[in-house]
Amino acid sequence: MLDNIRIVMIGTTHPGNIGAAARAMKTMGLSRLVLVGPERFPDAEASSRASGADDILASARVCEGLDEALQGCQLVVGASARLRSLSWPVLEPGAMAEKLVTESGQAPVALLFGREHSGLSNEELSRCHFLVNIPANPDFSSLNIAAAVQVLSWELRRYTGEMPRVTEKIRHELDLPAPADEMEGFFRHLEQALVDIDFLDPDNPGQMMHRLRRLYQRSRPDRRELNILRGILSAVDKVQGGKGS
Amino acid sequence: MLDNIRIVMIGTTHPGNIGAAARAMKTMGLSRLVLVGPERFPDAEASSRASGADDILASARVCEGLDEALQGCQLVVGASARLRSLSWPVLEPGAMAEKLVTESGQAPVALLFGREHSGLSNEELSRCHFLVNIPANPDFSSLNIAAAVQVLSWELRRYTGEMPRVTEKIRHELDLPAPADEMEGFFRHLEQALVDIDFLDPDNPGQMMHRLRRLYQRSRPDRRELNILRGILSAVDKVQGGKGS
Repeated sequence: MLDNIRIVMIGTTHPGNIGAAARAMKTMGLSRLVLVGPERFPDAEASSRASGADDILASARVCEGLDEALQGCQLVVGASARLRSLSWPVLEPGAMAEKLVTESGQAPVALLFGREHSGLSNEELSRCHFLVNIPANPDFSSLNIAAAVQVLSWELRRYTGEMPRVTEKIRHELDLPAPADEMEGFFRHLEQALVDIDFLDPDNPGQMMHRLRRLYQRSRPDRRELNILRGILSAVDKVQGGKGS
Repeated sequence: MLDNIRIVMIGTTHPGNIGAAARAMKTMGLSRLVLVGPERFPDAEASSRASGADDILASARVCEGLDEALQGCQLVVGASARLRSLSWPVLEPGAMAEKLVTESGQAPVALLFGREHSGLSNEELSRCHFLVNIPANPDFSSLNIAAAVQVLSWELRRYTGEMPRVTEKIRHELDLPAPADEMEGFFRHLEQALVDIDFLDPDNPGQMMHRLRRLYQRSRPDRRELNILRGILSAVDKVQGGKGS
């Protein structure tokens, strides 16, 4: 679906920003970059900042006007750093992603980014169905344009749910949380060792073992870790035995 | 609360990235930038890319080591582009924001960013309670570091907006998670004790301390619990000293 989402950059001044935007897009699985009247493109600085996303730059479409850039698009959303005097429906980033991703299942859609300093003109604005605003620090609200592309591309990807599930590596038996009986064995060993080194008074144990249980249960040691802890206790036993004898 | 969140950049190579990160932070209302061993700073390129966030650069703290950078921090999250072989708890960005913002109501917390090309070292990783991974295109997953700062700062700001209902439990000072420097003191004591009781070979330590760090970082001991653990180590010291003498 992300293939149907065009990122349209209008009148971009700095080629470095085009390259950085291409990189941002590619990290989030977007690939359709459209440039309307870029000041300098192609350009070595764009390639350098793309840093491996050269394919996005190479396949970027350069247009003279917005008509060509938006051809076939059924939904157009414009990124806006400012709240406009002329009220226009404004989405927050999550809602933007929902709309664009959903409709991209049917037809091409576009997300517009205006010039670095002046944003979208009124005429460009009038092509948009919605604006999207990244709620920012009211005292300093201007994101770099490639940074805005990164944030909104992330929202698009997040919404697709195409996130590769973190974790779920194949786990070794030893990486599984230690079962209750092994934990009990450890706690008995720990208690005995603490008595042996005179840390714990068996006649007046107080809450000590309760507190230690809570601490170690919370970390949910795996078997390998529990083996380490048992090993440490055995080493303490040996020192303690050596002292006693 | 965002004032209690430190953005820590380690060994950053390109000063432009430091400037762009400062700008990203400021747009989202973050202000505490800490630089550990930056290659070039201050630098004209940093100021130029900061583009109005010069105050963040001017107040950035430059540290030689991570100890200084993390002093007083009760929660440390490391940004990671890769899935690590040694499994470490990994959060997605929304969960990272919830944790950092919630705890920043109590004490300083830190979000770590590693070097542009190599990320966080194993030692730096071992200071983290959690990693955060921005789920990206598996074929091109490396976000520019300032772009990653932008995305995660946005998540932090988004979360602050979503939470007028911070649960204000009244907690005793001793019930707060032990800050990074106290944890380091514990780990140094633990390592020494393990050497003393012949459990750890200082000439061939392997992954042992790394594994133990992971275990104890995961349980996030509070100060009272850390006092207990230190007390146990001191009792071991005494037995060991008694044996040695």
